[in-house]
Amino acid sequence: MKFLHTGDWHIGKKLNGYDLLEEQQDAFRQVMAIAEEEQVDAIVIAGDLYDRSVPSVEAVEVFNWMMREMNIEKKYPVLAVSGNHDSSIRLETGGPWYETLQFHLHTRLEQALKPVEMGNIQFFLLPYFEPFAARKYFEDESLKTIQQAVSAVVEEMEKNFDSNKKQVLVSHFFIAGSTTTDSETKVTVGGLDVVPLSLFKNFDYVALGHLHHRHALRSRHARYSGSLLKYSLSEADQTKGVWVVELADETPCIEFFPVTPLRDVKVLEESFETLMSPSYYSDINREDYIGIRLTNKEIIPNVMNQLRSVYPRIIQLERAHGRTSQEMTVLASSDLRKKDPVTLFADFFETAVERPLTEQQKGWLEEEYTALQKER
Amino acid sequence: MKFLHTGDWHIGKKLNGYDLLEEQQDAFRQVMAIAEEEQVDAIVIAGDLYDRSVPSVEAVEVFNWMMREMNIEKKYPVLAVSGNHDSSIRLETGGPWYETLQFHLHTRLEQALKPVEMGNIQFFLLPYFEPFAARKYFEDESLKTIQQAVSAVVEEMEKNFDSNKKQVLVSHFFIAGSTTTDSETKVTVGGLDVVPLSLFKNFDYVALGHLHHRHALRSRHARYSGSLLKYSLSEADQTKGVWVVELADETPCIEFFPVTPLRDVKVLEESFETLMSPSYYSDINREDYIGIRLTNKEIIPNVMNQLRSVYPRIIQLERAHGRTSQEMTVLASSDLRKKDPVTLFADFFETAVERPLTEQQKGWLEEEYTALQKER
Repeated sequence: MKFLHTGDWHIGKKLNGYDLLEEQQDAFRQVMAIAEEEQVDAIVIAGDLYDRSVPSVEAVEVFNWMMREMNIEKKYPVLAVSGNHDSSIRLETGGPWYETLQFHLHTRLEQALKPVEMGNIQFFLLPYFEPFAARKYFEDESLKTIQQAVSAVVEEMEKNFDSNKKQVLVSHFFIAGSTTTDSETKVTVGGLDVVPLSLFKNFDYVALGHLHHRHALRSRHARYSGSLLKYSLSEADQTKGVWVVELADETPCIEFFPVTPLRDVKVLEESFETLMSPSYYSDINREDYIGIRLTNKEIIPNVMNQLRSVYPRIIQLERAHGRTSQEMTVLASSDLRKKDPVTLFADFFETAVERPLTEQQKGWLEEEYTALQKER
Repeated sequence: MKFLHTGDWHIGKKLNGYDLLEEQQDAFRQVMAIAEEEQVDAIVIAGDLYDRSVPSVEAVEVFNWMMREMNIEKKYPVLAVSGNHDSSIRLETGGPWYETLQFHLHTRLEQALKPVEMGNIQFFLLPYFEPFAARKYFEDESLKTIQQAVSAVVEEMEKNFDSNKKQVLVSHFFIAGSTTTDSETKVTVGGLDVVPLSLFKNFDYVALGHLHHRHALRSRHARYSGSLLKYSLSEADQTKGVWVVELADETPCIEFFPVTPLRDVKVLEESFETLMSPSYYSDINREDYIGIRLTNKEIIPNVMNQLRSVYPRIIQLERAHGRTSQEMTVLASSDLRKKDPVTLFADFFETAVERPLTEQQKGWLEEEYTALQKER
């Protein structure tokens, strides 16, 4: 039994206003190609299918296509759970019918306790849930933290373990720590939302979603899938992809397959002059989503518009070395006391963000200021 | 072959702010009881399943339950189309899986052309659509009006007619006119959004949704289901329910079965004194949704609060005979020129609506007025 482990698709996610649906469809096609190439028997999706509880109609359309493609066209069994970004009730629509074609999408805690059996594996599909759901289900008010709640859930699951089979948990939580005896660092677990990995010691493999780095947890038996794409600048250095897992012997056989984004997310830390120089940017895929860290210290007029003329998808612009004293002086030397607060804020915004307030933003500012004055 | 024809459920509909989910669940249970009693072979739902393109999560939960109950628990085949209130793409989620259990929910024009065959009937399920969808599908720019578009659709459908079977159309449009030769009034069709009934002359039965009155169209072969409940005061005098249709002989056998609302919608036209008198209201179900037409002409201080103490669910309050000259005098005699426009509007609102502006409404008013002044 061989399955593909993916998660954190966040369909409908926007990156600083840029719609990623095209990139997501492209990445999905690559995942399907890996599944085919590797001849997997099933596809595991560890939560956060959508980016928002109420996805846009365009996101719904893309997601519907993906589900059809995976389960109806290519006939892969699908084992999926809802994540904290999904609305479990909205995602639940269709669930009982999905199961007729081996598409198991679990959105409620109680669905997690009985395994879905496939080949030599018992899959336990535990969606993201809040502790109150466990208090209600187990009628036990002592389940205060998510750690206690998950512990109670795992105890129930273990009652359904079949010793002749392997057990896989699919879930979407913040898991930390490691009980393995290998050389990995032992993470101290703190905070109410963290679940210690040791709770899952009896599973043969734990297919996780939630953290976007596929190495967020270092364990032989438990992995985060990592997100389908880079969903923030902080993920710029991560390679995204999927795991292909085979459970035959004692230790799972796990292999990583990268997904190449249609448009990458990256950070450029350079001077304005370098960035604007054709000899520099001719080597760069300027269609990528780019965060720029300017090394200049002086003020550059109209900097964003100039940069955008070369790099159409700038998602962040900041100074690598902070503000210069010169800029601070400019701000301070103007006669602040003569300006009304609204103008003052508009000036500050323009200095900090390097573009003026839009008309709509000005409107909001004025409304807010008027309201504040009334309250006094 | 016997089927139940319902439609315009508008799950999640609010009546002047009152949530009707409880009433809708109750009405649905009655529909299920009728289906069981009458031993129907299928359930036809002629559009507007939801009230909004993005229904609330509570509405989704109720609708999911209804679908499960109907198709999975009670195992009725379901033949449904999306209406103009539904988001066809959102409703489409799950569609291909639904079909595995004879739950046919058509949301796209192209799905309508091939019939769903069941017993001796070919069901053509035509969802609500806009003319551009027909222009795109037929690659014919001449399809400007909905009438032209539906005409093209019906022509395609007729190519798939099996002369050994009966044909039923399920749809959600504004249909008018009648081609029958009986004594019914011939309606002149006007307006771009109206489809003439004569287009459907070759169907044995046309199960419609859209207009909320089950007698909106008078024809032997075509009916509006009427809405599941009374969804506005203008529907207060209508009896709601479902049709049970049997197609065996030449003429369909159609019977109406009423649904009794958990809380009714009604209009009371009385004087304030009568309405407040226990001898009057003890005979009335005061839990109903009530529109009040006051016959009084004088100003009654705090009238809404007084009425609400007896009738908790007032959804409208108006004067049966309009405003009195006395009230107009009061308004006119106050020194208008001394008041600022915001106060003036607040006074007018209170006089007209019989309650003062809320704090939030005052806020909006002030914002709007400030914005208007800036524009000058």
